[in-house]
Order: sequence, then structure tokens, then C-alpha cells
Amino acid sequence: MRKAVFPGSFDPITKGHENIVRRASLLFDHVTIAIGSNSTKKSMFSLDQRRAWLVDVFSDLPNVDVDDYEGLTIDYCKKVGASFLLRGVRNGGDFEYERTIAQMTKYMAPHLETVILFTDPEYAAINSTIVREILRNQGDVSQFIPDRIPVSELTR
Amino acid sequence: MRKAVFPGSFDPITKGHENIVRRASLLFDHVTIAIGSNSTKKSMFSLDQRRAWLVDVFSDLPNVDVDDYEGLTIDYCKKVGASFLLRGVRNGGDFEYERTIAQMTKYMAPHLETVILFTDPEYAAINSTIVREILRNQGDVSQFIPDRIPVSELTR
Amino acid sequence: MRKAVFPGSFDPITKGHENIVRRASLLFDHVTIAIGSNSTKKSMFSLDQRRAWLVDVFSDLPNVDVDDYEGLTIDYCKKVGASFLLRGVRNGGDFEYERTIAQMTKYMAPHLETVILFTDPEYAAINSTIVREILRNQGDVSQFIPDRIPVSELTR
Amino acid sequence: MRKAVFPGSFDPITKGHENIVRRASLLFDHVTIAIGSNSTKKSMFSLDQRRAWLVDVFSDLPNVDVDDYEGLTIDYCKKVGASFLLRGVRNGGDFEYERTIAQMTKYMAPHLETVILFTDPEYAAINSTIVREILRNQGDVSQFIPDRIPVSELTR
Amino acid sequence: MRKAVFPGSFDPITKGHENIVRRASLLFDHVTIAIGSNSTKKSMFSLDQRRAWLVDVFSDLPNVDVDDYEGLTIDYCKKVGASFLLRGVRNGGDFEYERTIAQMTKYMAPHLETVILFTDPEYAAINSTIVREILRNQGDVSQFIPDRIPVSELTR
Amino acid sequence: MRKAVFPGSFDPITKGHENIVRRASLLFDHVTIAIGSNSTKKSMFSLDQRRAWLVDVFSDLPNVDVDDYEGLTIDYCKKVGASFLLRGVRNGGDFEYERTIAQMTKYMAPHLETVILFTDPEYAAINSTIVREILRNQGDVSQFIPDRIPVSELTR
Repeated sequence: MRKAVFPGSFDPITKGHENIVRRASLLFDHVTIAIGSNSTKKSMFSLDQRRAWLVDVFSDLPNVDVDDYEGLTIDYCKKVGASFLLRGVRNGGDFEYERTIAQMTKYMAPHLETVILFTDPEYAAINSTIVREILRNQGDVSQFIPDRIPVSELTR
Repeated sequence: MRKAVFPGSFDPITKGHENIVRRASLLFDHVTIAIGSNSTKKSMFSLDQRRAWLVDVFSDLPNVDVDDYEGLTIDYCKKVGASFLLRGVRNGGDFEYERTIAQMTKYMAPHLETVILFTDPEYAAINSTIVREILRNQGDVSQFIPDRIPVSELTR
Repeated sequence: MRKAVFPGSFDPITKGHENIVRRASLLFDHVTIAIGSNSTKKSMFSLDQRRAWLVDVFSDLPNVDVDDYEGLTIDYCKKVGASFLLRGVRNGGDFEYERTIAQMTKYMAPHLETVILFTDPEYAAINSTIVREILRNQGDVSQFIPDRIPVSELTR
Repeated sequence: MRKAVFPGSFDPITKGHENIVRRASLLFDHVTIAIGSNSTKKSMFSLDQRRAWLVDVFSDLPNVDVDDYEGLTIDYCKKVGASFLLRGVRNGGDFEYERTIAQMTKYMAPHLETVILFTDPEYAAINSTIVREILRNQGDVSQFIPDRIPVSELTR
Repeated sequence: MRKAVFPGSFDPITKGHENIVRRASLLFDHVTIAIGSNSTKKSMFSLDQRRAWLVDVFSDLPNVDVDDYEGLTIDYCKKVGASFLLRGVRNGGDFEYERTIAQMTKYMAPHLETVILFTDPEYAAINSTIVREILRNQGDVSQFIPDRIPVSELTR
Repeated sequence: MRKAVFPGSFDPITKGHENIVRRASLLFDHVTIAIGSNSTKKSMFSLDQRRAWLVDVFSDLPNVDVDDYEGLTIDYCKKVGASFLLRGVRNGGDFEYERTIAQMTKYMAPHLETVILFTDPEYAAINSTIVREILRNQGDVSQFIPDRIPVSELTR
């Protein structure tokens, strides 16, 4: 079985994340969305809230589930027996970063393969950092988050 | 009337900023330099000081004025009725960042057009972060700030 | 009067070109689309055909006209009295190229200002080279060329 | 069945190509290496020779086969019923090119998914153009081609 | 005498740093590795520890020594009479950053020449930030640090 | 003795080339400018003309000489006993290309070290291809070529 892990902080999930996971669900037998909880980086939304949104958005995809982890991503992949690490790439800046991470991964876990999908052009500009900035300034983010998530849940 | 906003923190203004604004003053009927005041990011120079320098440097250009704002840049542009967002691009790193911002802007404010000028080569390496680092270490920044600003004002 | 030249080979015009010109027509008083005819590079479509398509696509914009030229772009700009050179940038590869050209232009014609617009994301992947490759292989290019151009005209 | 096409000219096959295909054979149920024969671009090695080398190098992988095609890659993928287009990316230059191609593919064949693997670092500098240049100058290319190919076959 | 300074935080030294210094020791008459101690950025390892590791790793190279400094790198270079600033570049992201720094250096110290070596491909993905992240999560970093440093010293 | 080779086609020499060689003459004991004569690529200026210009421009530098070669650059370096390959890098596009070449060089000639200098910002936009294009269109290239070369020699 070809099992992939899609790690991230999903703070909050965007249409870009949704786009990558839906397409990846056709490529892999199983995709686990893994929310990395990093004790030093403070998130805008609670782990429970982020997990609830992810579960809701992908409730129609039987081969996608949601989990969270602490520590190194490669250790988590080993623990759940995943052979593939899924990453979305939007632009040249992302690319350099992902290549560095992929090569470090290769050294530390030679059998864990990094697989890249390009974010579709209409979602390539969306990133969680800007979404949070807009939210902090009471702007409208409805175009950037999955349709299933009511905007009211992000702003209350 | 073609009105543009040139947003930034100008902490402090550099010759690179001056170069972009002088050239843009020929392209637009009016350019407003808008100092973004972000409550979470601490500046080296006070808002009043930054505004005073900008006003002084562009006092010879009748179609340039200086303002400040809080919140999202697109909201400020709407408030002052500007149709153009002016940005200077120095290098490939700037480019990827500006393209992402420009696309998010497009989604949120379809009628606000981002216009890019390349910083002239002799100013392309100058950035405020490095200028501040030099100031913190008592280095000489006179080559990097507009001629009208006495260096003594930056170091007192 | 703020007059801009938008140079290119337009072999053939794409939706990306159309996107840039329509947006630029709001920024400048006048935009001249200038077809560069380079004797050493063979085009797929005749100069007359390319000009006819451009005239047709922009017939609704009173401040846009179409011309052609031989020789250096900066010499053409001087001849028609344009102060602005308009360029569209799609991605990081375009960016490095355009910056080099803009800097050479600056040296040779200091008063000719290069103005950059980002191609909107939905058109950023379209380029004439790939359109020609698809045409050569009897593929369908209707999504990539302006709606006013009947695809039959490209394939007959 | 998850079927992928890996298109290229393989003129000649390098260790970089071999690296991508071996890793991809674990991700897909089937990988077809498709030699694009482009009538306008002259190859150094005959189609028969290139096919023979590819067949030989991957003879130990039961789910990899070799084919050739003319025309558009997306038309070939449709013909053989492949849902995935496999590409290797070595560096930032490759990246921008592949993203453009992937987006055009998305427009023309929405159900054909482009999947990217990073070439492993030790092979990331190898490209067929430089290998041909070395061969033309009687240099030693043995480090750059798969171990199964006797160098003598490339230089006779 | 051609004297170079190789500045950095070396928190901790990696095989990438070692690779650059060993190669540079053949190019320059003398290389000083200069640990920049920046009061605002907290390091994982003490200055004494970092210095001890560097001294140990390069104890076989008679023309390499280790020092530390506060303030601007260019001021340190002047103080020790170095005419060359040595930098390693791994990827496109590094490149843009180094070019900006090199140009600012040129303005402030015209006779101080920045010399770039490419990190060898097998070390190009290694960076201290990721090494520290792995250490924080009890991962194994032995592949990324010089062979002379016992891993136990990093994790105790 | 630290001996470097600076390879190129110099068709014609630009101020960018001159900038790199003058700075490199302080770093190396000897610099050989090596004109690569490639039988398949037609040059605008004859080998004799290009050599004469280079000799003239650097006649004041006792440790710089001019030579030409056919075949691979690494073979030429071995022949003349050079341990360093000197390259100038202007922008991100140059960078990716140079890194690829440097890595292939590393594989084929492990003891030949590639050393990179950044072209100074005022020359970073100058390239021979554009200079030739300007010459073909009777434009003025005097700003782009070394002061010692009379423009009349380029246009006769």
C-alpha cells in the first residue's frame, strides 16, 4: 500500500492545501494529513480547531485521514509506516526550501520519498501567513479557505 | 486622475525608495507614500521621524504626499481612492514575494492594479534592514540614505 | 501625455498579451503595441496576419493602436515619442530577463522608463512558443488565444 | 492502476534519468518511458540506439517499459491511458520550466496530473546537453551514464 | 599575503562549512574563521564550544585560524587586514542574499573583495538551522557534522 | 603559484569582463583569459580581433595573459597547469548555469576549483549577446565596452 504523509501547520487550512490533498488522494492509496505541533511557534487557531476543519473538509475522501505529531516529520512517517512525503510547491521560493528539506530527508531516511505536486495556478498565491494577516485586520478571507468552512468560524 | 499608493515602513527611507518615488512621480498624477504602522513590529525610528524625513526628501515634488495607516494596504487604497499600488523590485527574492502579494491583492481588490518599477542597479542592494544593522554598529550609512537627510539625524 | 510602447513578436497574440494591454490601457494615456520584425527570426504567422489580429482584439480600446518596427526597441520608442516601455512578467525566469533588458535600456535611454505588470495568474503559464508547438501538432489552442480570434484562423 | 509516462529525448540516458525512474517505479503501478521524437531537433544517437539503452538499463524493473511517440505529450498520455506525467526537477531553472509546462498541461488535459521528484543531489548537475558536449570533445562520460551502458558504445 | 575572513555563526559547524574552508585554504595564504557574536540572536551552543570545535576540525591546516568578533564584518576585516571575504553558496536562495551583502560591502569597503565558492553537491542541503531542529528533537545529526566531532558532544 | 583560467568567447569583450579580470588579478598569481573557439557557434568578431582587444585592454596587468583553445575547458586547464577556474556571476540566471557547470567540472576534474566573483552592480546588466544585437542595429555600445577600445573598431 502506498501511504503518504502531508505535513503542515494548517493554521488555518487554505484552498491551496485542499487542492493538493484532493489531487494526491488519486495518486496514493492513503494520505495522512499530519498537523505538526511545534511548541515554540504559537498558532492562531488551536490544534483542536485546525483538526476539526481538516476532518470536515475531507470527510468525503475515504482514503484521507487527519493526525497530529510532535518532533521530526521523518520520525512520524516511520511511526505510521508511510513511504512518501507529500509536498505542494507554489513558486520559486517554495521550491528552494522544499529541495533543501527533501535532501536532508534523503540523508536521514533514504527510503522516504518526497513527492511534489504544483499547486494549481488559481491557488498558487494563497498562503496561511497572509490569510492570518488579513484576519487580524478584519479582512475577508472567504476566497482563500475551503468552501465547507464558514468564514464566521474564523473570525469569531 | 491616476493615483498611486507606495506603501512601506521606511525605517528609514533609503536612496532605493527615493529612486522609485521620483521615477513614479512621472508615471502617475499623484503618489501617496503610505507608512504602514504595524503594532506588532517595532521600528527603529518613530513614525513622526520617518514621516518628517519623507516629507523633506520629496518637498520638491508637488504630486507626492506622505501619509500613514494601520490595517490592510488594500483597505487604505480604497479609503484614499487609489487605483494603483506601486512597488519597487530589486532582485529575484523581492520578485517572488511581490508576485504573491500582487495576486492576493488581485483576489481581494480586483480593480487595484499593482505596478512594478525595477530599482535602478546602483540602488538595488540597499535595504533598510541592512541600514539598521549598520547603524546599530555605528557604521557609516551616508551612501544609502537620501542626500537631503543629514547622517547626524540617524545616529543621534 | 503618458505614452507607452508594448513591444513583442505576438506570434500569435495570446490571452496573456491581451490581459496586459487591457490593464495597461487604464494606466497610460496611450499604448502602442509594436510588433518587432526581426529579419533573422522566422515567424509562424505573417506580419500582416499578426497585425490584423491585434487590431481586431483591441478595436474596443480607443487609446490602443498597433504598429511594427525594425531595429532597436529604444530607437522606436524615441521615434514615436514614448516615455514608457511596458512589459508583462509571468515568472522568475521572465523576471531576470526583463531586469537585464531594463537596465541596458536605462543606460542607453535614461528617460525611457520600463514599467512592469504581473500577468494575472490564470494567464501566467501561457506563452507563444508553446502555443506554436501545440498548433504544429494539431492541438487545440482555443483556451490560450483571445476570444475574438476564431481558432480556425490559426489552423487553416 | 496508476500509470505514469516519463517523457524525454534521452539523448543519451544519464544517471539522473535512471535515478528518477527507479524511484518512480515504487510510486506508480506502471511507468512508461516515452522517447519523444521531434522531427525538427536532430539527436546525437538514433532512436533505436536510445531505446535499446533504456530497455537494457531497466530490464530488472518489471513495471517499466519503453516506447516512443511523435506529437504532443498529452496526446500520447491519453492514447496509452496514463493519468500521471512524471518529471524530474534538478534546480531552479528546471523548476520554472516544469511549472509552466505543468500549467499548460492542466488547461489542456485537466485529468492528467504532473508529479515531480527531485533528482538526488549527486545526480542533479548531470544533463544530456553537457554529456553530448563532452562526447564531442572525446571526454570521459562514464560517471554520468548508467553503469550498465559500456562507454565504448557511446564513443564508437 | 592574500588573507581571507570566513564569517558565520557556526552554531554548530557543519560538513558544509568544513568543505568550504578546506577548499579555500588552497586558494588563500591565510583563512580566518570568524565567529560573529550577535548579542540579539541567541545561539544553541556557547561561543567557547563553537570555537573549540572549529579549532579541532581545522587543526591539520596550518594556514587556518579561528577568531570571534562583534559588530560589522567589514570592520573586523579591516582590523585584521584581510582583503577577501569568503562565502559559500549552496542554492539560489543563498545566492540572492549573498549578492545583496556583497554589493553593500562593495559600497562600504571598496577594497574588500567577496569571493564565492559553491558548496559541493553532497553538502549543499546541510544547514545549521535544520541541524539544530534535528538536535532539539533528539534526531541523529552525525552525517551533517565533521567526522572529528563526536556526536555525543552535541547532545549531552 | 595560484593560476586561474577565465574562459569565454569575448565576442566582444565588455566592461563586465574587464571588471572581473581586474579584480581577479589581485586574487590569483596569474590569470589566463582563454578564448574558447567553438567550431559550431559562429562569432561576430574574428578570433584574432577578439584576442587583440583582450591583449590591449589588459596590457597594464603583468600577471594576465590571453590564449585560445578548442575542446573542453577542463582539458585546457590541465594542459596549462591551472588549479582554478574563474567565473563571473551577474544574476540568478547565471547562477544556476554556473553551479551546474561547476558541479560537472568537480566530477571530471576534482582538483580544479571553480571560484566565483559577483560582477559589480554597475556592470551586471551588460552581456555580449545584447551588445551584438545593438551593434547589428547601429546602436551606440560605447558605455558597454572597455574605454581602451575605440567604438569605431567595433562598427567598421
